[in-house]
Order: sequence, then C-alpha cells, then structure tokens
Amino acid sequence: MKHPFQTVALIGKYKSQEITGSLLRLGEFLVARGLSVVVDELTAEHLPAHPYRILPLDGMGGTVDLAIVLGGDGTMLNIARTLAPRGIPLVGVNQGRLGFLTDVSLDTMQQTLAAILDGQFVTDERLLLASRVLRDGVEVFQSLAFNEVVVHRGNLSNMIEFEVRIDGDYLYTQRADGLIVASPTGSTAYALSAGGAIIHPGLDVIELVPINPHTLSNRPIVVKSSAQIEILMHRSKTVRTHFDSHTEFYLELHDQLLVTRFPTPATLLHPVGHSYYRTLREKLLWNQTL
Amino acid sequence: MKHPFQTVALIGKYKSQEITGSLLRLGEFLVARGLSVVVDELTAEHLPAHPYRILPLDGMGGTVDLAIVLGGDGTMLNIARTLAPRGIPLVGVNQGRLGFLTDVSLDTMQQTLAAILDGQFVTDERLLLASRVLRDGVEVFQSLAFNEVVVHRGNLSNMIEFEVRIDGDYLYTQRADGLIVASPTGSTAYALSAGGAIIHPGLDVIELVPINPHTLSNRPIVVKSSAQIEILMHRSKTVRTHFDSHTEFYLELHDQLLVTRFPTPATLLHPVGHSYYRTLREKLLWNQTL
Amino acid sequence: MKHPFQTVALIGKYKSQEITGSLLRLGEFLVARGLSVVVDELTAEHLPAHPYRILPLDGMGGTVDLAIVLGGDGTMLNIARTLAPRGIPLVGVNQGRLGFLTDVSLDTMQQTLAAILDGQFVTDERLLLASRVLRDGVEVFQSLAFNEVVVHRGNLSNMIEFEVRIDGDYLYTQRADGLIVASPTGSTAYALSAGGAIIHPGLDVIELVPINPHTLSNRPIVVKSSAQIEILMHRSKTVRTHFDSHTEFYLELHDQLLVTRFPTPATLLHPVGHSYYRTLREKLLWNQTL
Amino acid sequence: MKHPFQTVALIGKYKSQEITGSLLRLGEFLVARGLSVVVDELTAEHLPAHPYRILPLDGMGGTVDLAIVLGGDGTMLNIARTLAPRGIPLVGVNQGRLGFLTDVSLDTMQQTLAAILDGQFVTDERLLLASRVLRDGVEVFQSLAFNEVVVHRGNLSNMIEFEVRIDGDYLYTQRADGLIVASPTGSTAYALSAGGAIIHPGLDVIELVPINPHTLSNRPIVVKSSAQIEILMHRSKTVRTHFDSHTEFYLELHDQLLVTRFPTPATLLHPVGHSYYRTLREKLLWNQTL
Repeated sequence: MKHPFQTVALIGKYKSQEITGSLLRLGEFLVARGLSVVVDELTAEHLPAHPYRILPLDGMGGTVDLAIVLGGDGTMLNIARTLAPRGIPLVGVNQGRLGFLTDVSLDTMQQTLAAILDGQFVTDERLLLASRVLRDGVEVFQSLAFNEVVVHRGNLSNMIEFEVRIDGDYLYTQRADGLIVASPTGSTAYALSAGGAIIHPGLDVIELVPINPHTLSNRPIVVKSSAQIEILMHRSKTVRTHFDSHTEFYLELHDQLLVTRFPTPATLLHPVGHSYYRTLREKLLWNQTL
Repeated sequence: MKHPFQTVALIGKYKSQEITGSLLRLGEFLVARGLSVVVDELTAEHLPAHPYRILPLDGMGGTVDLAIVLGGDGTMLNIARTLAPRGIPLVGVNQGRLGFLTDVSLDTMQQTLAAILDGQFVTDERLLLASRVLRDGVEVFQSLAFNEVVVHRGNLSNMIEFEVRIDGDYLYTQRADGLIVASPTGSTAYALSAGGAIIHPGLDVIELVPINPHTLSNRPIVVKSSAQIEILMHRSKTVRTHFDSHTEFYLELHDQLLVTRFPTPATLLHPVGHSYYRTLREKLLWNQTL
Repeated sequence: MKHPFQTVALIGKYKSQEITGSLLRLGEFLVARGLSVVVDELTAEHLPAHPYRILPLDGMGGTVDLAIVLGGDGTMLNIARTLAPRGIPLVGVNQGRLGFLTDVSLDTMQQTLAAILDGQFVTDERLLLASRVLRDGVEVFQSLAFNEVVVHRGNLSNMIEFEVRIDGDYLYTQRADGLIVASPTGSTAYALSAGGAIIHPGLDVIELVPINPHTLSNRPIVVKSSAQIEILMHRSKTVRTHFDSHTEFYLELHDQLLVTRFPTPATLLHPVGHSYYRTLREKLLWNQTL
Repeated sequence: MKHPFQTVALIGKYKSQEITGSLLRLGEFLVARGLSVVVDELTAEHLPAHPYRILPLDGMGGTVDLAIVLGGDGTMLNIARTLAPRGIPLVGVNQGRLGFLTDVSLDTMQQTLAAILDGQFVTDERLLLASRVLRDGVEVFQSLAFNEVVVHRGNLSNMIEFEVRIDGDYLYTQRADGLIVASPTGSTAYALSAGGAIIHPGLDVIELVPINPHTLSNRPIVVKSSAQIEILMHRSKTVRTHFDSHTEFYLELHDQLLVTRFPTPATLLHPVGHSYYRTLREKLLWNQTL
C-alpha cells in the first residue's frame, strides 16, 4: 500500500444513477485536496461531463493508490475481486444501512475520508479464495472469491455426493445439498444461513460448511487458510458451483475443484474507531430483545 | 380397507432384475394360499413367463385389496402416491437395510406376510400432501407428495423471496434457499437434514422447514394438517418446486403454490410388534456411542 | 366457560406496585358495567382501600367466570397453572411489549375488554402438562407446567444419562445436558433456544427437545399429547427438574418422571382479530432485515 | 522438547487397576531399551512392587523427557494440564476405542512406542486456555483448561445474563444458559454438542459457543487465540463456571472471568501416519450411512 495516497479511483455501483451526485461531490472534494482522480469505465458511463481520467478496473494496478467504492457490500465484493490482486486498498461508502465491508456513511463521507487521506485509518486485510477446476488434470476454470465458493445440487433432483481432501488428507465423503468453502469475510454471509460459525475476519482460516448434509453429525469445520481444499465429485453429472453468487461453473463427474487462499489479501481501510463487533451486533440484531 | 384380502398386487422396484426371483417366489406363496395375484405393467416387464393378471397401477382401485411392494423407501413413496388415493393398503418388503416405510425383511418375508394375511398386522395411516399451483387464479399444475413439497432456488444465483400464509393468515415473507413443506413421514427425510423436528408419523400435522433462511431466527414451524398453506413467489422469476424429488415444476413470479392434506391417507400395514422408535434409533445411529 | 361473565377476578403481577393504578381503574370499569369484582390475596395486599371481595387463587373455582391478569407472560403462566384446572378463562393485559400470552395492551385495555365482555372474543385452548415423579413406584412429587418440564444436569459436572419411553415404547437412552418436554405454548420459550421447532399452540402435541445432546443426530421429536412420556434417570445421583422455571425437584437415581397432557386445558380469550403469527413475527424479529 | 528421550514417565488412569499389567509390561519394555522410568504418586499406589522412581506430577519438570499416559481422553486432559506447562510431551495409550488425544492402541503399544522413541513421530502442539477471575480487580481464582471454560446457570432458575469483551472491544450482552470458551481441542467436546464448529487442532484460535441463547441469531464465533476474552456477570448472583468439567468456581455478581491462551502449548506425540480427520470420521460416525 502506497501512502500518502496521490491517485484515487472513484467507483460507483453499476446501474445506479442515484449516486451520481455523490460521486461528483466526492470527485470535487478529492481534487480540492490536490489528488488525482480516476474513474472506471462503467462508472464513467453514468457520470455526465466529468473531467476524470478513465481506466478499466483491471488496468488500475500501478496507477491507483486507493479506491473509494460507493455501494453496498455486494458492490464491494465485486470490485475487491478485481482490485485486491493489484494491491489497491479499498474504502467502502454506503448509501443505506452500513454493511460489513462498507462502513463509511454517505452522510459523513467527507469528514471520514479526509481523516483517512490524512493517514488516520485502520488497515483490515481480508483473505481471498482462489479456486480452479481440473478436468483430467487440466485446468478448465479458475475464479477468485471474496466470500465463498459453493458447490450445490442446484436443479438436480437428488443430493450430490462428493469427497473432500485437505492438503491431500481425506476428510470425508458426504451426501448433501452442497458445501460452502467460506473465507472469514464470507462466514457472515451465506455460510451463516447454513449454520456456520462466525469467524473474525482477521483470522487466517477457511471454513467448510456443509449444506443440509444427509449425515446429521456433519458439522462446519475450520481449517488453516494455507490448506489446499480439494472437492471431488462422485456420481452426479453436472453440479453447479458458484463464486460469491457472481460467477458460476458446472462440474462434471470426477472434476476436481481446488480452493486455497489467494496470495494477496484484499486490503480494506476503515475509519479509526471501527469495530467489527459493533457491525456484527447491528446486522444480527443482537441489540434487540426477543 | 377390505379384509380378508383376496386380490394382492405384487410390485417390484422398477429397473431392478435382482428381485425377480423374490417376486416369483412370493407369487407362488400367495397363489398357494388361494389368493389372486396381480402385477403392474412395469413389474410385469421384468417377470418372464408369469401367470399373473396385469393391471396398470392407476387401474388397481376396486380390484386389488393389498399391495406388496419390494424395494426401498423410495420405491414405496412412488407406489404409495398412486395406490393410496385408491384406498389400497401397502406392505413394504426391503432387500437391504430396513427403511422407515419398508420394514419387512426379504429373509423372513413369507412368515411375516403369512401373519399379515391372517389379519395379524398394525395399521399405520400416513398423511399425504396435495399441492396445486395457481397462475392468475387458474390451476396450472397439481401433484401429490408423500414426504414433502419443496420450493428451492435451484440454479438461481440468489436466495428466493416468498410469502407464506396459513389458512389465509399471513405467516412471513422470507428470503432463503427455499422452504420444505413436510408430512410427518417426510420429517425424517429431507426436512431432517434442513433442521426440522422429527414428527411422529401418526400425527395430523404439517411441518414447514425453511432452507438456510437469511433471517437467523427463522425456525421450523408445525401447523395443523387441515390448514391450507399458501406460498406466493416474490421477485424471483422461475423457482423450482419439487414433490418427493420425483416431480418438478417451475413457478413463475406471483404463482401461488397451495399445499394441504390429501383427503385419503396412505395405509401401511406393519407386522405386529412394529416399533417406529426402533426404526428411528437404527436409522439415526442413536444406539451407537460417539 | 360460563358466559356472559358475571364475576371477574382482577390479578396483578405480584411485587409490582406500578400496576396498582391500572388495577383500580380496571376495577371501577368492571363495576360500572355491573360486574362483580374479586381479587386474589396477593393482589389485594398491593391495593390500598379497595372494595373488592378477596379470594385465594385456588379458591376461585365455581365463583369466578373470568380472570383478567395484568403482567407479562411469566405472570400469566403462573396464574394459569392455578386457574386453568378450575375452568376459569384468562385474559392477559400487558404493560409493556405484548407477549405470546398477554396480548391486550394497557393503553387500549378498556375498549378491548368491553368487547370481550360483550362476547366478542376468540377462544384459545392451551394444553397444560401434568407431571409426577415415582420413586419405587410411589408418587413423591407432582406439578403442572404450562410451558415445559425440564430435566437438566444443573450443577453436576457431567452430562446426565436418561432413558425415555413413549407410552411404554422405548425411544432412546441419551447423554445430554438435559431434556425439555414442551407444550405447544412452551415451544416458543426455552425449547426454542434449545433448537426446537415452533408448534402452533392449537395443536394437541408435545415436543421433546434434547439439550446439547452428546449424540449429534439427536433431534427434537413431536409426539401426540395423549402419550405418557416416561423419563428414567440412569447413573446420575440428583438431577434437577423444573417446571416453568417455577417449581423444582431433584430426581434420585431410578426415579421415574412421567409427563402427560393435563385433562383440562387453559383457556385464553383474545380480542377478535388476534393473530398468533403476528405475535410470532414481532417476537422473533422476522419483520426486520438482517 | 528434549530428544532422544532418556527419562520417561508412566502414568496410569487413576482408580483403575485393570491397567496395572499393561503398565508393568510397558515399564519393562522401557527399561530394556535403556531408559529411565518414573511414575507419579497416584500411579505408584496401584503398582505393587515396582522398581521405579516416584515423582509427583508437578515435580516432573526438568527430569522427565516424555510422559506416556494410559487411559482415555479424560485422563489425558487431566495429566496434560499439569505436564504441559512443564514442557513435557505426551503420548496417549488407549485401552478401548481410540480417542482424540489417545491414539496409540494398547494392542500395538510396544511397536508404536518403539518407533516414537526412535524419533519417528508427529508433533502436535495444542493450545491451552488460561483463565482467572477478578473480584474488585483482585484475582480470586485461576485455572488452566485444555478443552473449555464454561459459564453456566447450573441450578439457577433463569437464564444468566453476561457481557463479553474481546481485547476490550465490546462483543455483546446476552442471556443464555451459558457460554463455552473452547480451545480447538475442545471444539469436538462439549462445544460440539452446543452447536459449535469443529476447529482443526493446529489452529491458533479460540471459539466462543453460546449455550441455548435467548437471542436466536446468536452464533458461535471464532477469534484469535491471543485475544483476552472477558466475561462479566450481570444480574445473576452465583454462576457456576467450570474448567474441563474438572474444576469449578462460582462467580459473584460483577466478577470478571478472563480467558486467554496459556503461553506454553501441550505437546502431543503421534505415530507417523496419524490422521486427525480419520479420528474425526470414526468418532462422529461419518463413515456410516443413515
């Protein structure tokens, strides 16, 4: 992370024109601080008459020092998958209720960002998952995921059966609706609905959460993040796998799905005083009595 | 149920030739007792040179007094959906491990069936679920289910959102992978993997089990079987619904799926001394220590 | 239930003086309608200078036609255990957030009660649990419970081991922290925290919910309410059992705890338009997004 | 760990005479290999006429290079709490079914131990939990735990209420039966029954598992092992806390219970080829079909 920041990318939630005004105000604010502002191609389409340099998201590496993302957690996930491997730290600005990843409020955006630009921030490195599919030993697909990699029976009539190995060590063969391989960040997303434990996002671990397993003693299991997780399909013909509910791929019989930690983490910047646990309490309604 | 039984249907698991010998022996045994034996069309295909009358499954009503089904629980589910509405009681003979529905062992089949034919049996009435789909108020689909009716996102990328009403009374709108509407019989099938409670099969109730609900306080709920359960799709475009993993149908936006108890139960006959709880202990491995 | 009501008991939450004013206003309102008002001994202690007849709670049978209880669900549970066996219907008035059992708001109490007194109400019969403990075949304890009967290891260092029979049919021997035998009313109380399903309160069933069972395939099970549930202690010496968190008793080794439905239900009266599911949504925060 | 091992402690399950023969054979075997054998005081009581040096468990530090424990996982837990802080590695020999911690079978003990003594072993470091109780800021109790620290309402009639802080950062105030603070080793013990995730024992994390929480969205949470976990009692007067079901202490109102990782791990030695996942599959019956 290069600091002090000189070139800042402004990225708005795609297909939303509501934040155009916010983006423009933010751009002026950054320029007034003497910073160079860049926008990505899709954001640029929604910004009429702006003076900013346009770069494709995947071309920002080496140029952009910081990315400010306006949108919800879903937007942040999508942007982070592209920017994180390029070493660009991210700040998330949320229009509505604060999210797990987007914790700067639109209302107080300028003060908060001023502090962050002055170096007053907390760095939060988040593990990304790298996955690839081997067919007869040849890679036929690869994808990054921030939250989770999911194998699921989808439209199949029956539970799927698969075998899991951790660093080559046989874990189990199980029948289930599917399996979630979640990062700590993903532990509060789909994995939580499926009964997984919450993992503090600063931990270097990966959680495997079975989805409605046929064997009732099957439980979520947490393993070290450097492990290579191998999922091998039995029986079922075309099994849906998806990555952050964003990309999908259909596994054939005997395909191997390999998941491991991506070498570069995503780096989120938070305002000083940020509390993960406060977000957790608010999102899970722990502060409300039954 | 007409008793003493005079006409008995013999039904073998489709596409399995392993049980041909058992079926023939069973047929001879029944004939020797002076009973009239009937086989269904599919079973007949696998029985070379047999002397039995052939009837379609859905044409057995009024003729057949008892059906003996050779196969596993899955076979029994399929046959019961057709025969139960015609008032024909069923006995299940299992080749392998005993099932919840098929509790006569192939090994002791003749003694056990002799006793049942002599009137030594326990009657076990099981609720069936009747469902239909209304589109703009017009019925576009209907199906029976013995275990469960499932609404599920299938291959969709996101959780589905739906509204549930019980006898017109609003229960909730929820986002989830889906919802299981289970009979007591189905409570030990898919519903159990999804976290449902076990319901004694003699109870006249229906269980609704959410599948990985987004709202963590969502829980299985048990309602009276005479209730009409209405599931109304929000947002999602084509949502998969399936019935005993046997029949499927894709719901359009605003389709109403209605589920209620079918007027006629399925009648299973068990040997005297049958214990539901013993089956439960064996199937769920409660007799084994961790 | 005798209707129209002529004699009404007013019962306030014990040890709370905050509701004295409400009770007095309510008394005047009832007298103005020509009704005879009775108070119980404990309520009377907190009502200075009142003109009402005083009766012990357990002496109200045959005299009182309706009991109005001011307090929360806990108060209602306690009063109902005494009044329900005497056939006295109950209305619950809640000072704070509405409860499952107390759904008349203090603010609108007079209009709502006027309607109920005029016969505009919904009758809601709730199953009570009757339990007794046999030691060497002799009854050494008995208690009613509205919500649940709980067997729990309490201060013991290890899990307890016990055997359960349903109408004499062996269910299982299990090691666990304990077991909850819940009425449908109790299914939204402690049983829910322990992972039980929600049971509609109009159902005639009982739910058994294991508390942290050692065998992971152990699950809640719902049985018919007329069943006699027998819990037999193994090994452990003095095991705590409690009834609605109100009464407790310590079981010795080989004691039998028997639970069954009490012959007389508790009768709650609700305003017309009462919806159980609405209460459920509010109490479980189903109407709030994560 | 000092290797090659020269002085080996032999420790048998207390109060069991069944293993006396095994201990004596094992002693001879070790002496024949030229090793010095030590026994602890309690084991010595059950060994008639033995030639070994006797040392108290807590006096073995600096003398003993390796401890061989005969017994089950419970015995191993107890011994490890004393020996681990003294840097003595442990091998567990099990008479019955292999355990999570005791994975050398009595039957093949000599070959397996010969290999271990020859340096053919896998080292497995396990985190221990150190806890202490502060009353008005003064330490009034301290204890080590290998599996878990549990706060529980015990015989109290109502759920307890407590506040949890992680490194001073407020996590939540919750009402529940209690809370389990589990090491990775403990994640397959009591924490598993309470719904916790399985944590690979090589991970440097601590899991907090609520016991039957009143707020249904409360879930197990995994935090870093270097965190100081602070549990502060609200309301309740004397709350039971226990450590590996071995030691207990009663917390007063406002007592602070602090839990963190003990600086020295317990070191277990396993035969080469040891697989944690195999033990998991066997203990949780994952290899058996429903």
